[in-house]
Amino acid sequence: MLIGKVVGSVVASQKDEKLENLKLLVVQVHDHNNEPQPSYVVAADSVQAGTGDLVLFATGSSARQTTLTENRPCDAVVMAVVDSWDLGGENVYEKWA
Amino acid sequence: MLIGKVVGSVVASQKDEKLENLKLLVVQVHDHNNEPQPSYVVAADSVQAGTGDLVLFATGSSARQTTLTENRPCDAVVMAVVDSWDLGGENVYEKWA
Amino acid sequence: MLIGKVVGSVVASQKDEKLENLKLLVVQVHDHNNEPQPSYVVAADSVQAGTGDLVLFATGSSARQTTLTENRPCDAVVMAVVDSWDLGGENVYEKWA
Amino acid sequence: MLIGKVVGSVVASQKDEKLENLKLLVVQVHDHNNEPQPSYVVAADSVQAGTGDLVLFATGSSARQTTLTENRPCDAVVMAVVDSWDLGGENVYEKWA
Amino acid sequence: MLIGKVVGSVVASQKDEKLENLKLLVVQVHDHNNEPQPSYVVAADSVQAGTGDLVLFATGSSARQTTLTENRPCDAVVMAVVDSWDLGGENVYEKWA
Repeated sequence: MLIGKVVGSVVASQKDEKLENLKLLVVQVHDHNNEPQPSYVVAADSVQAGTGDLVLFATGSSARQTTLTENRPCDAVVMAVVDSWDLGGENVYEKWA
Repeated sequence: MLIGKVVGSVVASQKDEKLENLKLLVVQVHDHNNEPQPSYVVAADSVQAGTGDLVLFATGSSARQTTLTENRPCDAVVMAVVDSWDLGGENVYEKWA
Repeated sequence: MLIGKVVGSVVASQKDEKLENLKLLVVQVHDHNNEPQPSYVVAADSVQAGTGDLVLFATGSSARQTTLTENRPCDAVVMAVVDSWDLGGENVYEKWA
Repeated sequence: MLIGKVVGSVVASQKDEKLENLKLLVVQVHDHNNEPQPSYVVAADSVQAGTGDLVLFATGSSARQTTLTENRPCDAVVMAVVDSWDLGGENVYEKWA
Repeated sequence: MLIGKVVGSVVASQKDEKLENLKLLVVQVHDHNNEPQPSYVVAADSVQAGTGDLVLFATGSSARQTTLTENRPCDAVVMAVVDSWDLGGENVYEKWA
């Protein structure tokens, strides 16, 4: 998994029938020091994440292991909102700070 | 998933039997600010996308989860035409503008 | 899928039993403007492609969806010889020109 | 697999139900000369690795092959703590030195 | 698949039970001109490759298609020792030269 920030969402009405009823988030990748990276992914939302949330996302076949995304043509899923993480004993991010 | 623009199509007559009757699109990858990137992918079309459309594509085993691509040697599929997306509350792209 | 050019082949006699009777091609990746890229892949040949042919190859689990490669430890397959492709209405490559 | 160093952990309470009871480690990728690289991954811990341990991690569907991670939306797993490795007959790293 | 050179091996005693009895090789990636690249992979050995051998390795779910690696948390396997390869009719490498 990687850490990312929810920065937007995508609307698509003309789509494969197996893609119905998925909220599609634009997630900007962050590194482990919480610095934004140039890369992004569009991911299905399985946890009702909000704009600005730092989240974990999984890619590939693992992205189809949530109840929401099972058997769908979806290769990325947001499956957790990050509360906090630390590096070397130092807190890097704290959602509720 | 990533966002891309349909920029062309590929014709191939000598191919594996399991690849018959797939339209193969050349999709240039765009970033989340809608800037074209140097990378591309050739993807099966499950949504009758047209040249110039901005689309979502999935890769890997997820690309075989549409009815069209099931059990085929196909590692990328266009499964949605993008109507619009926003970043930080600002509209980045609007198909019908 | 990506476009590549068949530039050579690999011989390997000491190999896993499940890799028997696969022709292994060296494929140089091309971009969508038909420019050779520094990257390459060694791929099983499911279409009797010849040296110099421009081909499509698939990677990952999708590479095991041909009859030839099913259940084999093979992560790349050439499954089509490209006849032609276009970008923005302009022909980029024409095999029979 | 790649070699990495456990540098931290992630806490996430709002998450997909299938992600419960997984310890999530922040792993910085190391190269084969044991130099830290800029990339990282967040991986489930199947071996009770500790901060500072050098570990092996697997990604993609292979990350779901441990008893811990089976059928979960998890695309990276730490499945071994490295004791030592050598390059060209020279010891590069020795945990118990 | 990619070509690599076996440059070392990894010892790990604290590991997932499903990783028992796999020899883990450090493989440096080579390009198709046989130039060493900065990247590497740790791969299970299904062909009793020796240090200095040029080999083919597969990654992802394809790495679990050997009898040795089936159902294991292993995302890379060495499944062939390369005898030779050619590029454009010129021999690039010959094991027995």
